[in-house]
Amino acid sequence: MTQSKSWLDEINWDANGLVPVIAQERNTGHILMFAWMNREALQLTSTSMQAVYWSRSRNRLWRKGEESGHVQLVSEIRLDCDEDVILLTIDQVGGIACHTGRHSCFFKTLQNGHWLIDQAVIKNPEEIYKHE
Amino acid sequence: MTQSKSWLDEINWDANGLVPVIAQERNTGHILMFAWMNREALQLTSTSMQAVYWSRSRNRLWRKGEESGHVQLVSEIRLDCDEDVILLTIDQVGGIACHTGRHSCFFKTLQNGHWLIDQAVIKNPEEIYKHE
Repeated sequence: MTQSKSWLDEINWDANGLVPVIAQERNTGHILMFAWMNREALQLTSTSMQAVYWSRSRNRLWRKGEESGHVQLVSEIRLDCDEDVILLTIDQVGGIACHTGRHSCFFKTLQNGHWLIDQAVIKNPEEIYKHE
Repeated sequence: MTQSKSWLDEINWDANGLVPVIAQERNTGHILMFAWMNREALQLTSTSMQAVYWSRSRNRLWRKGEESGHVQLVSEIRLDCDEDVILLTIDQVGGIACHTGRHSCFFKTLQNGHWLIDQAVIKNPEEIYKHE
């Protein structure tokens, strides 16, 4: 009996078994963050339709919002031509994707040879991540 | 005499001296492609305001559109919180970013466990890349 090829097998995972992931907000088109997934993370994302990433710094699955409550509800999962980049369409619970307390992680813009911050902090990170 | 730190020095280049780059279309918000830059590519992009990437397969600078004419005009260069991902806002000359002749590289969407193509080919790649 042959097993049919899974959609997960069509992805060109990198040497570390990861794929880069772009999270785009559904109703604004804003790019909120960029992270990585391994096979298990993408599988879990597709079944729960909530974003689960692979944390390279902590070397473990990272259920986005697990500490902050800022869960990402996934409405679409897309793949690029080379089958090595994932694009998620999401709704960002709490409106904050960035660990700095901002809407998006891309809050620095290059102006006259300097990186300028042009997005406000919505909520103090110390309020978001309460370590007891 | 001390040299002031360049904006390029603030980027956390990976072990290969590269940074991932997302290209987002200015007037639609569509994600058109994902690629990589090294320091020289980003410097050239910032001075010319046309996207120059680093081709990992060809191991050389890749002036987007050099063969196809599908140049990307850059209006903004953004950096994320971890200073290791670049987001470009671009206008796509010719309306085709993908080497398959489609508007965007992200033309596959996950539906019921299968990757479905939901974007049309605008121009035949054989017409785009004429090898004489």
